[in-house]
Amino acid sequence: MPSLAEIANDYASMLAAGDTLAAAQKYWAADIMCFEPDQSQSDEPRLVIGKSAALARLKRWLENNAMSDILVDGPFITGDQFALFIDMEITRRATGIRELFSEIATYTVRDSQIVEERFFYG
Amino acid sequence: MPSLAEIANDYASMLAAGDTLAAAQKYWAADIMCFEPDQSQSDEPRLVIGKSAALARLKRWLENNAMSDILVDGPFITGDQFALFIDMEITRRATGIRELFSEIATYTVRDSQIVEERFFYG
Repeated sequence: MPSLAEIANDYASMLAAGDTLAAAQKYWAADIMCFEPDQSQSDEPRLVIGKSAALARLKRWLENNAMSDILVDGPFITGDQFALFIDMEITRRATGIRELFSEIATYTVRDSQIVEERFFYG
Repeated sequence: MPSLAEIANDYASMLAAGDTLAAAQKYWAADIMCFEPDQSQSDEPRLVIGKSAALARLKRWLENNAMSDILVDGPFITGDQFALFIDMEITRRATGIRELFSEIATYTVRDSQIVEERFFYG
């Protein structure tokens, strides 16, 4: 079983390479809980439970948005969690509008799988 | 009972003002769990459980270190947690050595008290 540090480093590398969906498919637990900020302007729910629902939400997001210039700071490991600080440019595919975006992401790992993903931004 | 947003804003303001100990005394739950990174170079334990033990550790840290130029970005609220991004200059009182320090801090709130504090840096 890979260590928390190995998972954190691999996950961070995959996100930095833009392989967000592959990272999710590889590491998300079947019962993952994905939290978005309460004040998120997305129409999606603030909490999605379960890998299939969470992957479906991620796929919808990736269909509507393109990421570029992804910079990942971390992983920073504390207890059973790791955190990333992510900077990127997001292009809304429908409008072509680009914006800079920064977020803190925390991941809780159990049995070598990510059981909770939580994004912080505002 | 104050809302999560009210607690998060007050806590962030108190930290930014350097009132770290007062913030802890005001908001930490009796059974708080405080997590430091595994690779922390401190001699203190990576996990301290309970308000009195956690306050004692904080007081020891404040006796040995002075904080200045504290910049707090946040709070960013997601579910039952808020996150802060903290930049500061730390002066080691014994040596006078100053260093810039950045960390992500996450706080879990239950019944208007902070039940978990977790620092991420590396």
